[in-house]
Amino acid sequence: MSGEPALAALIDALRRLPGVGAKSAQRMAYHLLQHDRAGAQQLSAALAGAAQRIGHCARCHTFTEAPVCDLCLDAGRDARQLCVVESPADQGALERTGSYRGLYFVLMGRISPLDGIGASDIGVAPLLERATDGLVDEVILATGFTAEGEATAHALAQALRARGLKVTRLARGVPAGSEIEYVDLGTIAHALVDRR
Amino acid sequence: MSGEPALAALIDALRRLPGVGAKSAQRMAYHLLQHDRAGAQQLSAALAGAAQRIGHCARCHTFTEAPVCDLCLDAGRDARQLCVVESPADQGALERTGSYRGLYFVLMGRISPLDGIGASDIGVAPLLERATDGLVDEVILATGFTAEGEATAHALAQALRARGLKVTRLARGVPAGSEIEYVDLGTIAHALVDRR
Repeated sequence: MSGEPALAALIDALRRLPGVGAKSAQRMAYHLLQHDRAGAQQLSAALAGAAQRIGHCARCHTFTEAPVCDLCLDAGRDARQLCVVESPADQGALERTGSYRGLYFVLMGRISPLDGIGASDIGVAPLLERATDGLVDEVILATGFTAEGEATAHALAQALRARGLKVTRLARGVPAGSEIEYVDLGTIAHALVDRR
Repeated sequence: MSGEPALAALIDALRRLPGVGAKSAQRMAYHLLQHDRAGAQQLSAALAGAAQRIGHCARCHTFTEAPVCDLCLDAGRDARQLCVVESPADQGALERTGSYRGLYFVLMGRISPLDGIGASDIGVAPLLERATDGLVDEVILATGFTAEGEATAHALAQALRARGLKVTRLARGVPAGSEIEYVDLGTIAHALVDRR
């Protein structure tokens, strides 16, 4: 397909999407051009609109078009609890449980030394500022139970406790619906230690 | 993420890409907004540019920005051979072999009754017109060796032979680098029948 700069540029640009390699990008480009030109136009407009309009909430850092997101503005939420999550996707999962009525702080990342992402890159300072607003009296760390998520929770807990804040962590344990014999040993050990 | 129409629109639009579901679309949107806004702008422009500028070659039907593609205009190609492929990707694979010097006709699809795609949807009439230009004396069918590719080749061969054209098909056989014991039986049977 030499001599087709617009097609080459489209395939190049699609490769910037996470998880999309050369073959997938080519397949996507051919599909859009052959079967879904309206989809190509729609995606083009949606990308431009989102890149232009979506910023970060001044209070919780999640994606929003407004200066402060709807959830942070919701007077019905309990301002004494602040739940720290890695991403808007994690926040969405917690919201879907329907069992949390406090506010959030979205890190938009996690400490990952292998990727060169340290504490200063994931907004620890804004979190400390947010958590010391005089209303928050408990910070719930809901980062992932992965190596990076645990390292992030550890670093945040140290910094928050140094400011005199109460810090809790989501419980580790046996997932709902599990048969004990099929649960990994590390999880069983933690569930024993954290038994209630 | 209720109340964020630009984000919802972006995730919706990304889901129109083939192979992209709800989770992937969300991950792509978050990645672009958090880490690669330049990539979002680049993809937006590339999509708009491609949708606007890329059409089909009047001779071979492949994607091109010009009325006729570079390959069809290349006087160094042998106009007596016309190779029929399903897609520009297949054409690219044949070109990379460096062993074909004729011209192409790109079907941009294949007969697939299960998807409601019949002979009239894949440009049989334009192919017949193209193949009867007085220069072509051999049509090489290089559609895939799948059920759909074989059905397409069969239908095209009938129509082309009815016009008195010589029609050939890519050889079926044992792939290069294969140990016979690991090759599927259907392939071995075909390689026996087509032995030379």
